[in-house]
Amino acid sequence: MHPTTQLLQEARDRVTFPTQELTKLLYGNEEIYETFMKAQKVIASEPSIRNHPDYHNWGRKEQIIKSYEKLRIMHQHLNLANSAHWAPMLSLFQGTTPSAVSFGMTVPALRFLGTDEQFNLWGPKFLTMEIVAAYAQTEIGHGSDVQNLETTATYDSQTNDFVLHTPSVQAVKFWPGELGFLSNYALVYAKLIFNGKNKGVHPFMVQIRDISTHKPLKGVVVGDIGPKLGYSTKDNGFLAFENYRIPLNSLLARYVRIENGQFSRHGNEKISYASMMVSRQLIIFIYPRMAAQSLTVAIRYSITRQQFTNDKREENSVLEYQTQQDKLLPRLATCYGMIFAGLRIMELVDDNFHRVLKKDFSTLQQSHAILSALKAWSSQWVVDTAEWCRLSCGGHGYAHYSGIPAIYFDTAPNVTLEGENQVMYLQVARYLLKVLQYVEKNPEKVPFYFNFVLHIKETLANQSTDLGQLLKLTLTLQLISVAKKIKDNMSTGKNFQQIWNEVVGVQLLSVAQRYAEYFTYLVFQEYISSANPSVKEVLQQMCDLYSLQVILDNPNTLIESGRITVEQFKQFNETKIELLNKLKPQALGLVEAFNFSDNALRTCIGCHDGKPYEYIYDWATKENSVNIKGVPQAVNDLMGTKIKARL
Amino acid sequence: MHPTTQLLQEARDRVTFPTQELTKLLYGNEEIYETFMKAQKVIASEPSIRNHPDYHNWGRKEQIIKSYEKLRIMHQHLNLANSAHWAPMLSLFQGTTPSAVSFGMTVPALRFLGTDEQFNLWGPKFLTMEIVAAYAQTEIGHGSDVQNLETTATYDSQTNDFVLHTPSVQAVKFWPGELGFLSNYALVYAKLIFNGKNKGVHPFMVQIRDISTHKPLKGVVVGDIGPKLGYSTKDNGFLAFENYRIPLNSLLARYVRIENGQFSRHGNEKISYASMMVSRQLIIFIYPRMAAQSLTVAIRYSITRQQFTNDKREENSVLEYQTQQDKLLPRLATCYGMIFAGLRIMELVDDNFHRVLKKDFSTLQQSHAILSALKAWSSQWVVDTAEWCRLSCGGHGYAHYSGIPAIYFDTAPNVTLEGENQVMYLQVARYLLKVLQYVEKNPEKVPFYFNFVLHIKETLANQSTDLGQLLKLTLTLQLISVAKKIKDNMSTGKNFQQIWNEVVGVQLLSVAQRYAEYFTYLVFQEYISSANPSVKEVLQQMCDLYSLQVILDNPNTLIESGRITVEQFKQFNETKIELLNKLKPQALGLVEAFNFSDNALRTCIGCHDGKPYEYIYDWATKENSVNIKGVPQAVNDLMGTKIKARL
Ligand SMILES: Cc1cc2nc3c(=O)[nH]c(=O)nc-3n(C[C@H](O)[C@H](O)[C@H](O)COP(=O)(O)OP(=O)(O)OC[C@H]3O[C@@H](n4cnc5c(N)ncnc54)[C@H](O)[C@@H]3O)c2cc1C
Ligand SMILES: Cc1cc2nc3c(=O)[nH]c(=O)nc-3n(C[C@H](O)[C@H](O)[C@H](O)COP(=O)(O)OP(=O)(O)OC[C@H]3O[C@@H](n4cnc5c(N)ncnc54)[C@H](O)[C@@H]3O)c2cc1C
Repeated sequence: MHPTTQLLQEARDRVTFPTQELTKLLYGNEEIYETFMKAQKVIASEPSIRNHPDYHNWGRKEQIIKSYEKLRIMHQHLNLANSAHWAPMLSLFQGTTPSAVSFGMTVPALRFLGTDEQFNLWGPKFLTMEIVAAYAQTEIGHGSDVQNLETTATYDSQTNDFVLHTPSVQAVKFWPGELGFLSNYALVYAKLIFNGKNKGVHPFMVQIRDISTHKPLKGVVVGDIGPKLGYSTKDNGFLAFENYRIPLNSLLARYVRIENGQFSRHGNEKISYASMMVSRQLIIFIYPRMAAQSLTVAIRYSITRQQFTNDKREENSVLEYQTQQDKLLPRLATCYGMIFAGLRIMELVDDNFHRVLKKDFSTLQQSHAILSALKAWSSQWVVDTAEWCRLSCGGHGYAHYSGIPAIYFDTAPNVTLEGENQVMYLQVARYLLKVLQYVEKNPEKVPFYFNFVLHIKETLANQSTDLGQLLKLTLTLQLISVAKKIKDNMSTGKNFQQIWNEVVGVQLLSVAQRYAEYFTYLVFQEYISSANPSVKEVLQQMCDLYSLQVILDNPNTLIESGRITVEQFKQFNETKIELLNKLKPQALGLVEAFNFSDNALRTCIGCHDGKPYEYIYDWATKENSVNIKGVPQAVNDLMGTKIKARL
Repeated sequence: MHPTTQLLQEARDRVTFPTQELTKLLYGNEEIYETFMKAQKVIASEPSIRNHPDYHNWGRKEQIIKSYEKLRIMHQHLNLANSAHWAPMLSLFQGTTPSAVSFGMTVPALRFLGTDEQFNLWGPKFLTMEIVAAYAQTEIGHGSDVQNLETTATYDSQTNDFVLHTPSVQAVKFWPGELGFLSNYALVYAKLIFNGKNKGVHPFMVQIRDISTHKPLKGVVVGDIGPKLGYSTKDNGFLAFENYRIPLNSLLARYVRIENGQFSRHGNEKISYASMMVSRQLIIFIYPRMAAQSLTVAIRYSITRQQFTNDKREENSVLEYQTQQDKLLPRLATCYGMIFAGLRIMELVDDNFHRVLKKDFSTLQQSHAILSALKAWSSQWVVDTAEWCRLSCGGHGYAHYSGIPAIYFDTAPNVTLEGENQVMYLQVARYLLKVLQYVEKNPEKVPFYFNFVLHIKETLANQSTDLGQLLKLTLTLQLISVAKKIKDNMSTGKNFQQIWNEVVGVQLLSVAQRYAEYFTYLVFQEYISSANPSVKEVLQQMCDLYSLQVILDNPNTLIESGRITVEQFKQFNETKIELLNKLKPQALGLVEAFNFSDNALRTCIGCHDGKPYEYIYDWATKENSVNIKGVPQAVNDLMGTKIKARL
């Protein structure tokens, strides 16, 4: 057997649990698993969609044009309107998935915020892709602060329609994906001016390009915003309106309406959250799986990569080094927790969705809080993990051929989009403080995943060093502390907003993160309970490693509380090292339980057959277009004549 | 005045110290400052070198060809052989600087490891760029582990020359910069086989391409390795030899020699460090200045960016939010410390360099340890800082137009190259343990910047909560602890190597980082002492913030020691917040003291006149080539006909 293939095979043989049992847990149910596997297969077998090693040598224009070709073919094979079908694409596809914004953001918003008639009017045209529509909320000058958006939609009672207008440069829509080139419609968020009064920001379904020529309509200025860190094929766009008339029916009218010249509101204002829920839920569901891809590459590579000779004159696999384990294994443990959290959240959002459609808004806020917490926490963690995986592959990690840089590129914006992380955390903190207030007067209002607030006394009194207890204690202490600090500051004459922005911001972020960690712990334990006995032990080790890492990363609160002794603290470090030793021989099975195909990993150093060196040399010599023509001539000219011409 | 310009101007007016006093300190001396400013000017005024907003839309081939054109022009304006001239380019130039490897790595190695005759033979040809030479050490299969490189240079006593050969795929040279296209020579590290015996890995100066046609010579296989995360214009290359004959004089012969058919060694083996010292020193010197560029953009933008309305119905600059200050100001403080450290290290390396040339190796190891610690610590920090600066700019940070993604791209490899960070830290830890052993028997051998080991008792007894004391205490405790752990484990039958790799790795990394932090603190204080009185106060606040952040990030050791009470710990958090409040109004002055031109920042959201929105719209609409032609036609075709063809 090829020597590095053998290293990988031996590692595979050392795994002591049945990986297929983990596979079942990781995908939640058969349907998700099957669509994932089908998407992997379709992408790998379609020559024009599968991974192209040369892709990252190309300019943006070439990449974008290629992505439209891919869209055409995907449209033939998969039902893109069904998020179960296209969502896996987000992690399996080279480049960002065209039409994901239209289907993942605009259609859900239409579903939630439009009337049934409106949904029936436009919905079917999305299915056939006669309509592709950007979600046009952010402007150059305002993103997080949606209430201060400046695009205006002025109701004209004479003509019973609206005039859309962009009053200044900072009011130009900027960033919406698929706006630059692809979309012929946009869901435009604009300030509704009704009889001279500002009625707040609302969504309008607006045609921006001609259906057959695809040219921008008169009064519409639209294009691509330029190159970005990643997302090179995504045509994030700008959009300005010059007194552009749109029909009355453009306003999505489930919750606000203009009828017979009268403006009225219906239902729960908080519903505007709901449309973002779908996309946030997808972020939590899909992107930790991209971290799992980078972990698969890094762990396979760390087994085949040998560097430095041991005292028996054999070379060590770098995974034998404690520092390498420390880079990868706690992240692998967290990845499992996050994926379980993503599955549970899918259920919670689904349940909430059905309630909302029945005008039951009782689970809206808690869902929003959990989603916000996990969106923020997981998105930052995914990016960091891709980075550490890349670094753990040494030089080869920096090559696009490793597959890892692109994971970083395309997960990086999740920290910012769909609710900037800090802004999200602040909303979570606000909800936690609210739940804390329920304790006295409305304990029945405390939702299940927040019921730690009902046990504050017990938590504070509990002397156990059980890891879950310590996570709960940390969360509880931080929440009490920040609530008290706000209260204390109120009596010094500062107002609430000042305190929030200028005095307790850092603490608020912290408590929200502690909530995300604790929620993940709870769900991790739920999944262990329901797991097949053959994998319970390894999962418990993973959950312990996850929890220990969380505690060791942020020990300050426990320390300050005096509840952890110096000795216990040292012991945690030791226990963590023991867990690294236990999990090292299982690591390959733990990543291979995800069942990613080589094509889906877009790598040549982390393939299933473990031959990184042959593949990397192959790709460099055979697939790398810059070697073939053009550049050598330019440098021949330079070195041959021009440089010397200076003398 | 334009409203956002006014915001910036008001902030400028609030700064209370003379920024030019800081400028002097930051550049160390007049000469460095003047070359920096000159380089800024040359680059900004040469149309084909200055920042091109469209650059990141281009494919690699286009970017590479453009970079050779830039090289030709730079060669006319600047003395590239003088590192004072080209080093500033590394941070001011769009894309990586061609010829930097040749001048920054190969020439110093030739200087240190070649004889005077060899230096005289090749050196002048570098100056005229008749020779451009890659530094070809890393192979596909081995990077960090230089001793196990597999390229062979077999001495042929018949012909009195060497045969260079690449015995396997994993022995192919891979990664050397400027190898793919630009170089006609390479300094090739190969295992010297002399009379059938392995004499270790040594450098050989090898011609690989024809001087006039620039075609690879027979027996040489060479090309570009493919696309990477960043470094898109750098032609990192592969190189294989097929029984390729090179003359005897190829072997750099200052420390090993073959004369009259005899192999001999001369001088200190550790000298092989020395050639890397120049490039590591440059990494420490230059790249924190790129972090300073990202901080300049982020702080200016955070002053002009307004988001959310306060109770007076005015919009808040986002720098008013505590969380935003917390993202940026501790990093700004650390940046100052790191830049001072870089200046001090330049002096240390220079001093060592002159000693070594006189065969005095007394400062070699300490210089190596300090360089390794600071190379590892600063390189990771720079990347993290670029990332946090990017995130602090919200959506616009993700655009290349912010200038920050490219800083991330081109600083990211520094974590891996020139000594992979973890491997570096382990070497630092080894040196610290060695210095610890001096204490008993050879205290006079302890170098100045390591003399904390001479005061262990005092440090442990000292009850002060002076921040410098606490940093020293942390370092001391960690060093004692890991030394003891190694000793304890030796008695359990494990051998030293096993303990090192598998038992104490994580602790070793930690103590090395603590050293880097402590060294930076010491130098920071030295610079404050020598500063003009008008800036001492603000610098001391910065040093305090730096130190507090270090302590709060890694409190575990202090906690475990029991030397910090819960109350003191809480107080540190409060003090930090107070410092944020004090430094916020100074932040703009602190970044503008670097005096970066708008062109050098390659940004449109962090310019001196503070008009982010106008510029970003201008660049998107006027400078963005993908809008102009090609793509719209492709998408018209797609949306107009092809998508529907499915129906
Ligand atoms: C790749 C990408 C795709 C996108 N796609 C779309 C799309 O399809 N449709 C669309 O409408 N938009 C889209 N956006 C825009 C995105 O939604 C916004 O960029 C995002 O909401 C963040 O807003 P912002 O840029 O205004 O950041 P800002 O809010 O300006 O953030 C700047 C800084 O201020 C801080 N800050 C802001 N407010 C507060 C506060 N109250 N307290 C403390 N700190 C604060 C932030 O934490 C951050 O550090 C996209 C963005 C990207 C990068
Ligand atoms: C952009 C770029 C430019 C480069 N330019 C050049 C150049 O001009 N010339 C040249 O010769 N090379 C160059 N290189 C190669 C570079 O020097 C190597 O990649 C670097 O030395 C790291 O070695 P490696 O790739 O073998 O990493 P590895 O050593 O294989 O690292 C893989 C992992 O193993 C870990 N590891 C390895 N050994 C140990 C140990 N003993 N203990 C604990 N952990 C360990 C590392 O920490 C890492 O996590 C370049 C690389 C890049 C990315």
